[in-house]
Amino acid sequence: MAEHEDIEQYCLQLARQAKTASEELARVSGAQKNQWLLTAARLLGERSVALAEANRLDLAAAPSYGLTDAQVDRLRLTPKRIEEMAQALREVAALPDPVGQVIWSSVRPTGWVVHKVRVPLGVVFFIYESRPNVTADAAALCVKSGNAVILRGGKEALHSNLAIAAILAEAASEAGLPAHAVQLVDTPNREVVGRLLRMPEYINVVIPRGGESLIRRITEEAQMPVIKHYAGNCHVYVDRAARPDLAESILINAKCQRMGVCNAAESLLVHAEIADRLLPRLCQALADRGVEIRGDERTCRLFPQAKPATEQDYYTEYLGPIISVKVVDSLDEAIEHINHYGSHHTDAIVTQDIDAAREFTTRVDSAAVMVNASTRLHDGGQFGLGAEIGISTDKFHARGPCGLEELTSYKYVVYGQGHLRE
Amino acid sequence: MAEHEDIEQYCLQLARQAKTASEELARVSGAQKNQWLLTAARLLGERSVALAEANRLDLAAAPSYGLTDAQVDRLRLTPKRIEEMAQALREVAALPDPVGQVIWSSVRPTGWVVHKVRVPLGVVFFIYESRPNVTADAAALCVKSGNAVILRGGKEALHSNLAIAAILAEAASEAGLPAHAVQLVDTPNREVVGRLLRMPEYINVVIPRGGESLIRRITEEAQMPVIKHYAGNCHVYVDRAARPDLAESILINAKCQRMGVCNAAESLLVHAEIADRLLPRLCQALADRGVEIRGDERTCRLFPQAKPATEQDYYTEYLGPIISVKVVDSLDEAIEHINHYGSHHTDAIVTQDIDAAREFTTRVDSAAVMVNASTRLHDGGQFGLGAEIGISTDKFHARGPCGLEELTSYKYVVYGQGHLRE
Repeated sequence: MAEHEDIEQYCLQLARQAKTASEELARVSGAQKNQWLLTAARLLGERSVALAEANRLDLAAAPSYGLTDAQVDRLRLTPKRIEEMAQALREVAALPDPVGQVIWSSVRPTGWVVHKVRVPLGVVFFIYESRPNVTADAAALCVKSGNAVILRGGKEALHSNLAIAAILAEAASEAGLPAHAVQLVDTPNREVVGRLLRMPEYINVVIPRGGESLIRRITEEAQMPVIKHYAGNCHVYVDRAARPDLAESILINAKCQRMGVCNAAESLLVHAEIADRLLPRLCQALADRGVEIRGDERTCRLFPQAKPATEQDYYTEYLGPIISVKVVDSLDEAIEHINHYGSHHTDAIVTQDIDAAREFTTRVDSAAVMVNASTRLHDGGQFGLGAEIGISTDKFHARGPCGLEELTSYKYVVYGQGHLRE
Repeated sequence: MAEHEDIEQYCLQLARQAKTASEELARVSGAQKNQWLLTAARLLGERSVALAEANRLDLAAAPSYGLTDAQVDRLRLTPKRIEEMAQALREVAALPDPVGQVIWSSVRPTGWVVHKVRVPLGVVFFIYESRPNVTADAAALCVKSGNAVILRGGKEALHSNLAIAAILAEAASEAGLPAHAVQLVDTPNREVVGRLLRMPEYINVVIPRGGESLIRRITEEAQMPVIKHYAGNCHVYVDRAARPDLAESILINAKCQRMGVCNAAESLLVHAEIADRLLPRLCQALADRGVEIRGDERTCRLFPQAKPATEQDYYTEYLGPIISVKVVDSLDEAIEHINHYGSHHTDAIVTQDIDAAREFTTRVDSAAVMVNASTRLHDGGQFGLGAEIGISTDKFHARGPCGLEELTSYKYVVYGQGHLRE
């Protein structure tokens, strides 16, 4: 880890090198990018001893950073995890190259043509927290989509990240990619982030991945666009026309299949007309799986084990074995509740009523809206979009799974034969 | 014009009303939106006397704002201009409704389907300068794409804008659109803009249209995304493999067909190998049309009437009868010059060499790149995209002509039959 006396100079150099690399990447073929990914995957396997050694330095320092056991576990690089990281690179190599795709075209009446062509965004600044595999994942997606990337991982993973970045650099040199296509910030100095966020002339987009406070801070400071991945306060709404078995299986899958993820359900809404029959069954199924129920008055009456919910509960992403529950009098009330308390991430309706489904999907303002399907299906891989860098809760540029295409822009290319404006 | 004692309260009210209107617009049919546009077009014709009267108040006040003759002319509403404004509304009515279009879909192996559906952005804050017709144009595009809009025009056009906004509101009421779908800021108080720019919870995107300093100020202050329309410092590069007749006709069209617009050429680059033969002819053709030539040393040698260019000239968007000229030694030099000095708006190559065209279109980082066609063709209408709110020089979300589709986002809608995550 280098000490940088002049942080400003260090940041300028990183940013300029990234910009130059992004220009050079315009001339790199898809085959070269894939060769880079496959070479890096091979090297990850070959260098697993060195990787484990670097990782040990981070693990040894972990107590001094006050990491929890779960955080230390996320930091650990096992042979299995290294192989998974390599496999992820191979999967990105197998995806089609988005750069240069014609995504729209028009032949004009006088014979000139317009092509709308996918191009890279330029330079991506990617800020993330502890898991070292994100270093490889993010670099793979950014560079495959033609962008240079500046990576800033958590200080607690710095040795592991440096070792992974060194492998990516070695593979880049073998494949003929620009040396600075992938750069890792190699100092834990916090000023670096602030300086880079004030360099919109070099950096085209920032992607922070981590807790809400990190994302808010970055959004306030950044002078370039930010792709935000906020919390998922996801709902399952059981309509009066729901099939009880679907309601139960979808709810249980959405809440319990994996609790600590952004597309897990955090809140259950049940239509008043079927609450008497269905709410006790649904709550019991959750309670049987160790989930604590926090309900409104009607929920507590129908399911006496429930604890009373506060208003704050309806805003909360628990990421664990708690769920908020509310009985609603109408589809309208469900939609308004979700748009008000939710986080515009993923919300599901269970219903056999085609009009209710249409109303819900039209008016619920979320990145993904599910009809008779689990919220857990909201995922780039599940959708058939390939690997993703996260799930965007923005409405601008990228919404939902953020993969290769979301890391691109486009340009218009016009081909004429001397065509003029009349 | 109301006096607003409490600007904060006024802005909050505008923003909240807009957000509520945007939610209500989700339930408005395309037919209603079109009826609104056609009704407003009819009312503009019927109320032309009242419009002219309001406009006279602005024209009378114009000297007190220190407006130039050209600015006063832009402000003037003639019967012809009112009819053009109405016609623009009819044209937007004729465009297909983007909201609800499925723009991608995937059938998953276990039978659930994903639709990627176009949805409105939400609330647009549109800031513009003098021409009153922009009030109608911007409102039409924003609302047709399902957004509520807050309009803030120039103070020098306030009476005209209020009269147009009143007509749009009357038509909205007739067509059953929410009353606050279109709101005009009715005070010239400058604080209003600053306050609204700090309300990202209500306003989804800001579109400033005007001079560079206005756009920079807005971009710095805004806490929500901005669609920027910066200057067009556009180039025509005449390659060594150019056909002389095409080079001349494209250059003259790009520079002279209309000088004061963002897609007019401001700089000419000529390959050294053909400069001796071609540069004097090209410069003479420009000079014949009253264009002043500002050239580098080689240009001044080949065309002695040229004035020497400073480095600043190559950065300049003249919007008038001046052009900067430079002889370049290679295609590479031309591309690097354009990427360095240009504004990433519109740049053209004239060449018969297919490899040169490919290299130029791949590496020139501009919203539109033209091969053997005039820069003046970069326009939503010319491209077949319909009416536009401007030409974006951003790479994020919207690039190039910014029309109905660029005013939308998307959501994913999943249809299952009890499908779960395995």
